[in-house]
Amino acid sequence: MDEDRQTSCKVTFLPDGQSATVPCGVTVAEAAARVGVFLSMPCGGRGVCGKCRVRVAEGSVSEPTEAELALLEARLLSDGVRLACQARITGGAVVEVPQESRALERKEISLLQFVAHELAPNVSQCVVEVADAHLEHQVSDLSRLRAATASIWHMPATLAALRAIPSAVRSPGRQVHIAAVNGRIVSVSPAGEGDGIFGAAVDIGTTTVVAYLFDLSNGQYLGSATSYNPQAQHGADVVSRIQYAMTEPGGLDDLHRDVVGVVNELIERAAQQARVQLRHIYELTVVGNTCMQHLFLRLDPGHLGTSPYVPVLSEAVDVEARDLGLAVNPSANVHVLPPIAGFVGADTVAVILATELTSRPHPTLAIDIGTNGEVALWSGEELLVASCAAGPAFEGAQIRYGMRAGPGAIERVETRDGDLVVHTIGDLPAVGICGSGLFDATAVLLELGLLDTSGRLAAATGPGPAFSRLLGDGADRAVILAHPGETADHVPIVLTQRDIRQVQLAKGAIRAAVELLLERVGLAARDLGEVLLAGAFGNYVNPRSTLRIGLLPPAVPVESVHGVGNAAGAGAALALVSLPHRRRAAELARVAKHIELFTSPEFQEVFAEAMLFR
Amino acid sequence: MDEDRQTSCKVTFLPDGQSATVPCGVTVAEAAARVGVFLSMPCGGRGVCGKCRVRVAEGSVSEPTEAELALLEARLLSDGVRLACQARITGGAVVEVPQESRALERKEISLLQFVAHELAPNVSQCVVEVADAHLEHQVSDLSRLRAATASIWHMPATLAALRAIPSAVRSPGRQVHIAAVNGRIVSVSPAGEGDGIFGAAVDIGTTTVVAYLFDLSNGQYLGSATSYNPQAQHGADVVSRIQYAMTEPGGLDDLHRDVVGVVNELIERAAQQARVQLRHIYELTVVGNTCMQHLFLRLDPGHLGTSPYVPVLSEAVDVEARDLGLAVNPSANVHVLPPIAGFVGADTVAVILATELTSRPHPTLAIDIGTNGEVALWSGEELLVASCAAGPAFEGAQIRYGMRAGPGAIERVETRDGDLVVHTIGDLPAVGICGSGLFDATAVLLELGLLDTSGRLAAATGPGPAFSRLLGDGADRAVILAHPGETADHVPIVLTQRDIRQVQLAKGAIRAAVELLLERVGLAARDLGEVLLAGAFGNYVNPRSTLRIGLLPPAVPVESVHGVGNAAGAGAALALVSLPHRRRAAELARVAKHIELFTSPEFQEVFAEAMLFR
Repeated sequence: MDEDRQTSCKVTFLPDGQSATVPCGVTVAEAAARVGVFLSMPCGGRGVCGKCRVRVAEGSVSEPTEAELALLEARLLSDGVRLACQARITGGAVVEVPQESRALERKEISLLQFVAHELAPNVSQCVVEVADAHLEHQVSDLSRLRAATASIWHMPATLAALRAIPSAVRSPGRQVHIAAVNGRIVSVSPAGEGDGIFGAAVDIGTTTVVAYLFDLSNGQYLGSATSYNPQAQHGADVVSRIQYAMTEPGGLDDLHRDVVGVVNELIERAAQQARVQLRHIYELTVVGNTCMQHLFLRLDPGHLGTSPYVPVLSEAVDVEARDLGLAVNPSANVHVLPPIAGFVGADTVAVILATELTSRPHPTLAIDIGTNGEVALWSGEELLVASCAAGPAFEGAQIRYGMRAGPGAIERVETRDGDLVVHTIGDLPAVGICGSGLFDATAVLLELGLLDTSGRLAAATGPGPAFSRLLGDGADRAVILAHPGETADHVPIVLTQRDIRQVQLAKGAIRAAVELLLERVGLAARDLGEVLLAGAFGNYVNPRSTLRIGLLPPAVPVESVHGVGNAAGAGAALALVSLPHRRRAAELARVAKHIELFTSPEFQEVFAEAMLFR
Repeated sequence: MDEDRQTSCKVTFLPDGQSATVPCGVTVAEAAARVGVFLSMPCGGRGVCGKCRVRVAEGSVSEPTEAELALLEARLLSDGVRLACQARITGGAVVEVPQESRALERKEISLLQFVAHELAPNVSQCVVEVADAHLEHQVSDLSRLRAATASIWHMPATLAALRAIPSAVRSPGRQVHIAAVNGRIVSVSPAGEGDGIFGAAVDIGTTTVVAYLFDLSNGQYLGSATSYNPQAQHGADVVSRIQYAMTEPGGLDDLHRDVVGVVNELIERAAQQARVQLRHIYELTVVGNTCMQHLFLRLDPGHLGTSPYVPVLSEAVDVEARDLGLAVNPSANVHVLPPIAGFVGADTVAVILATELTSRPHPTLAIDIGTNGEVALWSGEELLVASCAAGPAFEGAQIRYGMRAGPGAIERVETRDGDLVVHTIGDLPAVGICGSGLFDATAVLLELGLLDTSGRLAAATGPGPAFSRLLGDGADRAVILAHPGETADHVPIVLTQRDIRQVQLAKGAIRAAVELLLERVGLAARDLGEVLLAGAFGNYVNPRSTLRIGLLPPAVPVESVHGVGNAAGAGAALALVSLPHRRRAAELARVAKHIELFTSPEFQEVFAEAMLFR
């Protein structure tokens, strides 16, 4: 019988026609995710927001749930309209997914999908029925609570939890909800008051900060929020932030307040979208480069900036949320994953964890493309890591029209009939250009001859329609990517000569790190079985463009290059939902061998070469 | 050789002539304590305050220490004047102890003397030398710190401690002081900055609050501070406080703030006297009756006041000092010892612990005389406890001229030539009367015929000089204890008829509890091998008086009655300096059998009888 129910069903998604064979019984949303169609689910797929409407054109799905009956008019239901998070595949089906039901922030979701399968979090909950006390049985409230369940028998409780006990155990029905973190009871409340245990994985980049929200009762991903790191006002890169912290009075406090503020803002946004109460968020896992971790914890980053570049600590840290002024449950545990070295942070550990780098059978390179770029090389035997100062270009900062991947961002640029064509996220009028668009644009400009290998834009006198896009002269040269008619503000969106120089610096730093690491283990670029590109723009980067602009050595086969999304965030998420993964992260941080490039005598030479577009 | 140095020396103390045989090498102060001569040592015997001056009249003591050379003029030194905390006995000696060098708060010290012998605290410290980092050895600050000592290898650290690491490990000399509490690093600082680990044992009574300060590096008792419980403004006993907490808006917060405030004040006072920095106080142990424990933790005490009288918890609690707003190190551990029942608190557990009640070979009664009186009976096999509402009379509250045992308190009253004579603490002009004085005064009034067994003061017409002390009539009757010439304010100090009634209620409640507990285990008063009287007035209570006023059954032999001082405070101190004792306290709380007297049908009858003075 079980096997009968578990047989496979074929589902096709319109209008694009992707089809998948999935286990019968999965939701339409899950089936869609398997073919790369991601539905908008601000409520986390709990049938609350009604945003994931699809139409079942043909075939067999489950009966409408109560949530669907409440959110969809009878007229719609009879036309086959359903909520993708509720309707389950029961046989072959054809499903239309309208544009407005699709997730715009698609890029985050893919790596996070699998997280639910690893559920073993540091947070637990239970609901118990508490016996009454009698004169013949004068047992304290807490003792009666403990007697109700073995799972909390020996756990100490926070003062806040203790204070909540007397009214909770006397609530109608005596049903009490208990939440525990780190083996400690942190919440006691009458059951049913919107119970739940939630957690957030936070990736603090030099330029971009992202928070991912999870339901820790089932590992479900509930959504994310992204923002620029407001510390950028005090310096674009880690070195200038360290300087600010050291030289400005109150500088460290400023930077600490900035990052705590943005983390709070992101968690609040993600929680609001998913209708999760902040006090039900009981754990945070945090990754970032080593400097960001120091600033988040308000540890003096000064010694990161001078030889021998040592961090205050290189182990994981657990602190209470209230110690950092985080707006979640005050007793929530904040687990900051371990960094590896002064400029190789827990974000790299998280990338290695999420990509299972050290389990791969062939030499594999993982590159986390951020303002502080990190390269991890698994030689098949050894794990080497290095960092490089790439600058914020690929995150859209310090680029005239740079922006994060979001609605209206030019995310893809192609050649067509000797000219270039841009594609924006959501097919909306262009607002700016994001990291993946920047890769493509640079590659296309090289292709069209508008850019030479030294990184200089051509004069507006060349052959072909693309040359008419060139403006200005010398250092003020620029190329129009989107004409006023294609943009949201009706002004042209251009890529400047200065922007190109930023791209060169960024890709050159990464390329140099790649070359030096390969050399260190005696491997050639052609030996690499895979190259994984992680970063905010993640899986939308075009492998061909990364090769064309020379971010990777030309000997790397294009088919071995894969975008893996924000793998650092995914690693933080794994450490959030799974204690075994958290322990694995600590182990990876220990075994990773840090290669210091700054002090490497050949670095400058390799870097100068790596800046060229070839 | 060792044995040679350990031979005994005989010391005699003048002017009273007590002598003791002590191991050679102990300080004069230690030798004096052994014969009940307690020296004033506000600095805790560290040679800082210079208050413990004695004169070595004869015999052999050690050479003057640097502290003595600094604090004593050459003229004094050559006359044999020394500091008792510094000078060590090296042979037979005769030592004069002037009145001004004696401790006034003698009563606290005796039970606390032995505490040092049990040292195994929850707080530890070490000083380590931290290696430098190099480019070839890029090891984080914390890792280098851990590498310096095995004792902290696996300990997590608080955020405050982590933040202090980078500057501490770079201080001149690289000598770092580390303090740990509860297996967690809570302080990292450059060594030598007035290092130390200190702790306080706190006894929160309904009427009186006491804090005892200890050096946790050696278990040394450093001094105490005592105050009335400011909660008394909201009700004299636990029942009225519970009512206040329940019915007044913000009542619970008021009471909580009151007790935290007074605990802070006492710890500050004791710390200041001993020149200890508050941030070096890393642990507090706290005892009190169950209601006081609830109010200290700000737990709802409401259910203590109504059947079935259950506390929120009946186990020990550990919370961080900052959770309660305590003015010690914010990461200090506050260990609240376990209560036994709704009206039998950790103070009783502490009394049982400190008196080693359950190790005694014969049936023994321990009575903690406080506003909430508690009686513990060890039958030889079983440990029974009960509570009774004695009222605050013996702590000097609700008595017209009542006061705590302190300078000028009438602590002893005797008959002489048909009249009464009073003795005050410090032989100062009388200020008021403390608990032990109240026992004596009542006993003496009964003896002189000024008081009958029903508790009524006689009219001023009797024979003998004492009758001239009687004033007023009926309910307004009073007896003069000290005439204006004998008092500090030059007004007579009287004991009123109303005061006597308070004494009756208090002693009646305790007597009834004693009778009922004995009955419960089938023992008679004459079977008791010992009766231990604990309380703020402690070892100064006159056993004869307690029998004369009928606080104890007349069959109790007077020689079996002993004052044991503030045994609750001593128990808290034991739990502070010794984790094995802390565990023992938890065990005692578990095995103690609580007898509920309120609901006992015979209680009212026994109580009415017990109120009489016979």
